Amino acid sequence: MTYQQLTELISQRKSYLCVGLDADVQKLPEGVPNTAAGVLQFNKHIIDATRHTCVAYKLNSAFYEAMGAAGWQVMADTLEYIGNEHFKIADAKRGDIGNTGQLYARAFFETLNADAVTVAPYMGSDSVMPFFAYAGKWAIVLALTSNPGSADFEKLVLQAEQEPAGLIPNVIKGHRSELLFERVIKTVGQWGSIQNLMFVVGATQAAELSHIRSLIPNHFLLVPGVGAQGGSLQEVSANALQNKTGLLVNASRAVIYASLGSDYAAAAKAAAESYAAEMAVYLE
Amino acid sequence: MTYQQLTELISQRKSYLCVGLDADVQKLPEGVPNTAAGVLQFNKHIIDATRHTCVAYKLNSAFYEAMGAAGWQVMADTLEYIGNEHFKIADAKRGDIGNTGQLYARAFFETLNADAVTVAPYMGSDSVMPFFAYAGKWAIVLALTSNPGSADFEKLVLQAEQEPAGLIPNVIKGHRSELLFERVIKTVGQWGSIQNLMFVVGATQAAELSHIRSLIPNHFLLVPGVGAQGGSLQEVSANALQNKTGLLVNASRAVIYASLGSDYAAAAKAAAESYAAEMAVYLE
Repeated sequence: MTYQQLTELISQRKSYLCVGLDADVQKLPEGVPNTAAGVLQFNKHIIDATRHTCVAYKLNSAFYEAMGAAGWQVMADTLEYIGNEHFKIADAKRGDIGNTGQLYARAFFETLNADAVTVAPYMGSDSVMPFFAYAGKWAIVLALTSNPGSADFEKLVLQAEQEPAGLIPNVIKGHRSELLFERVIKTVGQWGSIQNLMFVVGATQAAELSHIRSLIPNHFLLVPGVGAQGGSLQEVSANALQNKTGLLVNASRAVIYASLGSDYAAAAKAAAESYAAEMAVYLE
Repeated sequence: MTYQQLTELISQRKSYLCVGLDADVQKLPEGVPNTAAGVLQFNKHIIDATRHTCVAYKLNSAFYEAMGAAGWQVMADTLEYIGNEHFKIADAKRGDIGNTGQLYARAFFETLNADAVTVAPYMGSDSVMPFFAYAGKWAIVLALTSNPGSADFEKLVLQAEQEPAGLIPNVIKGHRSELLFERVIKTVGQWGSIQNLMFVVGATQAAELSHIRSLIPNHFLLVPGVGAQGGSLQEVSANALQNKTGLLVNASRAVIYASLGSDYAAAAKAAAESYAAEMAVYLE
């Protein structure tokens, strides 16, 4: 799916909601068997209940891999069931050296037919570039994540660029020092384009969102962390929407586990519609 | 497998060789079908040919995921075939927020019964800690990798610690500045122990190995990049072995693709024996 197609989808559906299909086989609603087949059945019901309100689905591979090979088949079957009217994200946080990275691209873009894969940037260029080799496919690179551990490395302060004449770093002169995630955004931004590269920025990092938006005015941002993790949809939208596009906001548990009773599909529908209604206002 | 058991294995087998079972289904030797079943057959022949010479096997998940769910089953079947007389590494480079990280730990330690998983550190503490929750299981955290892209982020210079009295960073006074991978080693080293934490250091980074060894004198290092990627076993061993242990050196293509003819198993045996013979000398 291209940038243009995704933007049109957001405009038509008046929503930038991404539903995270992250069901734990050990935690399924009443009446759903705790098996791989149960997860697939659950996913199909959630998809049927939310199709009209969202533009994307995100499958975190951890939940499927915990079930082994059967889980990978559920991931494949779920992506197929979603079809081609939604942007399909494999939230796999992959990244490996060049020849191996190509295999990951093959796994997610060819074998699973996802539109996008989330990618961890630590290993650098040759671990990210293989995901840019497919037309209409995307790498969504981790920038600043929603978890407490994001402070450990992502926010490390880099040594200031040296002035040509001397040794006194900019930091002494009061410039804002560069953080690792900012360097990731700037550097990876040179490898991809707005047609094949998005960044992950957690909704719990709303204070940083407008700054990040200024660094990359036109790239899509994938923002998880609304709902169970506590991020505010209003704040995220105010800081990250750009010309009524450029933003996907993911909600997982807040939608799929809106009820753990037998009414889970209706509850998921209501939760997704509530997000979408709020988004429609911000898109006006 | 515990630190003590792994050390005893190295001592008994006079080898610290890890064989990387990274066969691309599209590139298999003469006579091996280009199917998931073909990869499993190939893996079994390689394992039979190299069991006596190595202490570990490493399966890079990308090669299996490129085959979809069938590939995950081959990964499971291969790990089961290896048995319990070798250290089994899932080279998956995973990492995700806390509750999701637990699912990855379940996937690799419970469903697949691997001894260790490689972990990408970018997302910080809660993405690494779930892998420490299993007795006798290990996280092998990426520190400094063997690929060209390792220069992009892993070697970024961090802002020097400020002196209590002033603003002039240590760098001006000629101290060695801290690089990101060094901070990763120091910080992650506080989360795990020598019983559950190793680091990945690429063999092409041999110049850094003795420095890294000084930072973490007792942790195991997993060193890929010998063979096809050009690292020197002699140099790596001289810099990283510590009291005749603490090191696993991986060779993948140099062993499994030693021949692409029908004699591939014999060629893999010879290649692995050659590495092991050299290692036996360094262990004396």
